[in-house]
Amino acid sequence: MTSNFDPGPQIAQIGAISLGTPDLEKSLTFFRDLLGMEVVERTGGVVYLRGYMELVHHSLILFENPTPVVDSYSLRVQRREDVERFHSKLLQQEIEVLELPSGRETGRGEAIRFIWPGAGHPIELFYDITKPAAPAELRSKLPSNSSKRRGLGVRRIDHFNVQCEPQQVRPAEQWLRETLGFKRREFIRIPESDTLLASWMSVTPQVHDIALVANPNEKPGQLHHVAFNLENFSDLLTAADILKDHDVQFDVGPGKHGIGQALYLYVRDPGSGHRIELYAGGYLIFDPDWEAIEWTPASVRDGLTFYGDSLAEWDAENDPMAPTTDAAPLHSELRSAPVPL
Amino acid sequence: MTSNFDPGPQIAQIGAISLGTPDLEKSLTFFRDLLGMEVVERTGGVVYLRGYMELVHHSLILFENPTPVVDSYSLRVQRREDVERFHSKLLQQEIEVLELPSGRETGRGEAIRFIWPGAGHPIELFYDITKPAAPAELRSKLPSNSSKRRGLGVRRIDHFNVQCEPQQVRPAEQWLRETLGFKRREFIRIPESDTLLASWMSVTPQVHDIALVANPNEKPGQLHHVAFNLENFSDLLTAADILKDHDVQFDVGPGKHGIGQALYLYVRDPGSGHRIELYAGGYLIFDPDWEAIEWTPASVRDGLTFYGDSLAEWDAENDPMAPTTDAAPLHSELRSAPVPL
Amino acid sequence: MTSNFDPGPQIAQIGAISLGTPDLEKSLTFFRDLLGMEVVERTGGVVYLRGYMELVHHSLILFENPTPVVDSYSLRVQRREDVERFHSKLLQQEIEVLELPSGRETGRGEAIRFIWPGAGHPIELFYDITKPAAPAELRSKLPSNSSKRRGLGVRRIDHFNVQCEPQQVRPAEQWLRETLGFKRREFIRIPESDTLLASWMSVTPQVHDIALVANPNEKPGQLHHVAFNLENFSDLLTAADILKDHDVQFDVGPGKHGIGQALYLYVRDPGSGHRIELYAGGYLIFDPDWEAIEWTPASVRDGLTFYGDSLAEWDAENDPMAPTTDAAPLHSELRSAPVPL
Amino acid sequence: MTSNFDPGPQIAQIGAISLGTPDLEKSLTFFRDLLGMEVVERTGGVVYLRGYMELVHHSLILFENPTPVVDSYSLRVQRREDVERFHSKLLQQEIEVLELPSGRETGRGEAIRFIWPGAGHPIELFYDITKPAAPAELRSKLPSNSSKRRGLGVRRIDHFNVQCEPQQVRPAEQWLRETLGFKRREFIRIPESDTLLASWMSVTPQVHDIALVANPNEKPGQLHHVAFNLENFSDLLTAADILKDHDVQFDVGPGKHGIGQALYLYVRDPGSGHRIELYAGGYLIFDPDWEAIEWTPASVRDGLTFYGDSLAEWDAENDPMAPTTDAAPLHSELRSAPVPL
Repeated sequence: MTSNFDPGPQIAQIGAISLGTPDLEKSLTFFRDLLGMEVVERTGGVVYLRGYMELVHHSLILFENPTPVVDSYSLRVQRREDVERFHSKLLQQEIEVLELPSGRETGRGEAIRFIWPGAGHPIELFYDITKPAAPAELRSKLPSNSSKRRGLGVRRIDHFNVQCEPQQVRPAEQWLRETLGFKRREFIRIPESDTLLASWMSVTPQVHDIALVANPNEKPGQLHHVAFNLENFSDLLTAADILKDHDVQFDVGPGKHGIGQALYLYVRDPGSGHRIELYAGGYLIFDPDWEAIEWTPASVRDGLTFYGDSLAEWDAENDPMAPTTDAAPLHSELRSAPVPL
Repeated sequence: MTSNFDPGPQIAQIGAISLGTPDLEKSLTFFRDLLGMEVVERTGGVVYLRGYMELVHHSLILFENPTPVVDSYSLRVQRREDVERFHSKLLQQEIEVLELPSGRETGRGEAIRFIWPGAGHPIELFYDITKPAAPAELRSKLPSNSSKRRGLGVRRIDHFNVQCEPQQVRPAEQWLRETLGFKRREFIRIPESDTLLASWMSVTPQVHDIALVANPNEKPGQLHHVAFNLENFSDLLTAADILKDHDVQFDVGPGKHGIGQALYLYVRDPGSGHRIELYAGGYLIFDPDWEAIEWTPASVRDGLTFYGDSLAEWDAENDPMAPTTDAAPLHSELRSAPVPL
Repeated sequence: MTSNFDPGPQIAQIGAISLGTPDLEKSLTFFRDLLGMEVVERTGGVVYLRGYMELVHHSLILFENPTPVVDSYSLRVQRREDVERFHSKLLQQEIEVLELPSGRETGRGEAIRFIWPGAGHPIELFYDITKPAAPAELRSKLPSNSSKRRGLGVRRIDHFNVQCEPQQVRPAEQWLRETLGFKRREFIRIPESDTLLASWMSVTPQVHDIALVANPNEKPGQLHHVAFNLENFSDLLTAADILKDHDVQFDVGPGKHGIGQALYLYVRDPGSGHRIELYAGGYLIFDPDWEAIEWTPASVRDGLTFYGDSLAEWDAENDPMAPTTDAAPLHSELRSAPVPL
Repeated sequence: MTSNFDPGPQIAQIGAISLGTPDLEKSLTFFRDLLGMEVVERTGGVVYLRGYMELVHHSLILFENPTPVVDSYSLRVQRREDVERFHSKLLQQEIEVLELPSGRETGRGEAIRFIWPGAGHPIELFYDITKPAAPAELRSKLPSNSSKRRGLGVRRIDHFNVQCEPQQVRPAEQWLRETLGFKRREFIRIPESDTLLASWMSVTPQVHDIALVANPNEKPGQLHHVAFNLENFSDLLTAADILKDHDVQFDVGPGKHGIGQALYLYVRDPGSGHRIELYAGGYLIFDPDWEAIEWTPASVRDGLTFYGDSLAEWDAENDPMAPTTDAAPLHSELRSAPVPL
């Protein structure tokens, strides 16, 4: 009982998403000028951004690309040696791993890249990342903020919501829990067939750092949305007001999820068509013995939308929340090409 | 590098505070009817309460007592065996430990009790706690809530802020970090004398689960306040409005801390005089390499209050935030007496 | 130019709505316990309520009735003599007028009652109304509040939204403006046929005290909804959360109107089925030369819902916002029967 | 009783304030870039601004001036002919009146100017003002907004708070009520000496369009502050956060007034030192028989500040709310000089 216990390598937090955009300037207008994110660095067609509460170099990379691909989802590990420890673990499973040198993303140290088995998404693991000070005119009086709050007040990246083929949800979700240590927090299951439709998982007390959802079009590896965090419900309403007035495309929202209990608004980056969720509030899970909350297709309506503009049915035609098949296909190759080294 | 690594026993979250009150009915009016907490169980003069987002049996115990003592601060460990592992660790340090049987607090399993070295506060560690369903009329449609939101919307306990003699802050804080695994997040230091005045520490991504602050009256083991969490800044303003109209004593607030970036309001439980903080918002720390933020007496004004009703000077006379010497002395004995077994 | 100018009798504000309910206790649970209104007086099956910011005796009357009728919409005139001046004006138009003695509604002085020509709604005009102090335990420290804020924080009645047969909208709206002095603030018109579909009118700087809307079912004199005012957008979200959890039926919302710019939530009183709007924010019109804002069926989508849960199409089947034909028919007789004298 | 009744000329709303500033660019950074007001027109050293919900040409004029004077407080009358009717009324009282030609302020029609008897403030009355469309890139989808919400979301001017010598408060307040038709809504009186210390007055349902307050320095004609309106309490907290981070000087706030029940924040325009209040919420008075609420020095503490950062005592030294004697003296001459014709 008091014997040694090695938890193995651990994931600490989600790191960044790297998004290809056909219209970089338009995407910058959206993320920097409207959402209020800081452009930390720009190297040719690659731009590194962060929210005002993020001290790390970036949580969002935008790069010029003919199509709106996702180049990577990165996760930050708990200790520097965990990169290598995960590397070994992956090799034991005969998963192909690409070693990325320090600086592959500006500000970031050595990383490894692999494809999430079953789900088909390119994941990168890293530990080291610089924490550059913002330019003096942007800097905040508060040392826990990297810059002054601006625009719609995006504080930080919040979570990834990705899709895979329906029959892969169960094994891919299991893999993420067993190999990367994510915990299942809430999930949707069809009781009759014991089919897992969606799972909200986290390594932090957030209800989800990553959600994995069955793709109704039976496609592998598609981004559903990436979420950025706002502080208060009222911030999200203000964002809705201003984004609407700027003709940004709304998919669904504002509304409140029963699952996670956050306020949501799904819009599209006008430069790329990637779906972006603005996300505020919600509950935190500190209980070490949390039992994942089960929803069924019959009960999940309140889970998807407790109140407000309702998330469409899973199989509806003209579903505003359909996977953005053409708009945001995944760059699901091991080799991440577009971002210049 | 890939060698085995045992993190040892771990604290998962703060559990509950046990408060003696000379006027139990008045305290219940405050916590249940105004703040909106659920009375889960009542056994004679002992009442167990929780917020609407807490599934566990209780986070607050009120018990009749001639004086407003604190009987215990409980912490929940990460795994069941961690109670015993911590027990061993404490014995190795020759710290006296009291074993508390299951049911010592209704709903709670076996626990151990000891006095925080240096600080003088009675801490209890436990793992097991029941998660009773609320009565049907209070139950929420959302399974992540134990009951419907009511009153001023207290969701859960947030943190403890306790005091000790100034010269004990450094060793007591070090002990909490080294033995219980708390991480220092923000702190106040006098650079000239290298004196640690206050430290905000957590085992969760919250900026603090426990804060330890130098007591200007040079007393050991006093409660400064216990905080309960509200969801939005707007909830805190509504709380201020309603509590003011109910003649609840305000100490300081509303205002926004620079340290932690939450909105605060400090009031007194009318039944006991214990200082209660209502607390909303703030930032979360996911960075595994967080560097604790240092404040000095010269810089800390923005840290204490970024805007709003200002926290008084540390040494001011008539300080509304003075330690509540007479109102909330600690029951700093190893044997917790008042609560009947 | 400096010659005498008599504005004639004037309406100062809307007064109260009198609603029949088949289940008075259930309606009281809704308006008093959930919404937080004060029961000022109860006489048998008639209950008088007000919001916490209303000093007058009542803005809502609930009375037991087998069906959910509306007995009257009352308007308060600017000066005591305006009751008689309006009486004369109505008689000049050969409109039948019923004189109601003082006390016909408890707390209210003499009034007159007539049917709004074209629209078919029973309107009552009065000036005198008592301003009783609340019981000591409810009384607020602020003399501009009649009681402490409670429940979901309904402050006051806001506006009436009533319907009439489509071809009557234009003449009935014109009558209200010309005879009672309401000003048109925003409106929907079909340009091709010059058909007036809806008009938002006020005597105060509110965008509307009364809205008149074409009834798609071609019926006269139906209530669409009565609105009660909350202070902040955040109050409306909290209300949505709590009403949802209490199984109150939602029609539409929360969302933000473009017309009037307020946040809205339409729910049903569980006791009567009457549609109630909770309403927060919006703009005020102080401009003496305000030009009414015109919307067309093609442009009005943003006017009905700028963001959030969208108001259904005007002619949709299963329209959650359809006139509540069976649930809330108007008691459109000159003689108001149900309320006992 | 039904005899003719001529209400005489009427004031409809406050129009604009004209502020001299020694550092026009700094003032523009504050009002345009931080507060989010639109620069409608600029002619040399004179800049015309409005909030995003104001359709009229301007509510704020900034003009270069060596000292931070107030050139005028303008009020808009109810009908075009009311300018001339007020002119006659003033001449009957032997008050000197200056006729200002159309275009004296860009966009404004003919106006008259006079000094408020007793109080010493220059008031201008006008009716005509243009309602120019904003440039396409700023224009809102909502026709009730002149531009998109930007910056901290200043919607419109709210009220003037001006001072005069203590012994002049009573006659000057009485003059404003009797000659211009303002109504007293709340007031502070010393009962022992029947001294009027302050009065909140309005022609609209707002609790005040103008407040008149005794100047503790016994000076005539000083501006205390001009207030701009935000929609929600949450907007004011966000404003506090951002203005603090931009080193804008805070006088007092955020806090909630008992008088008027609005949330307040008093800051200084960094370019001029004029005190600006950001103001959100509050109650509206529709009652035609409103009885002004009386406060005394003994009771007014809750009236000044119901909760939050407290307004200082009236006679305190180092009062952050002291009249800005040096910073904002009034240009109290009948001839308004600085603004070029």
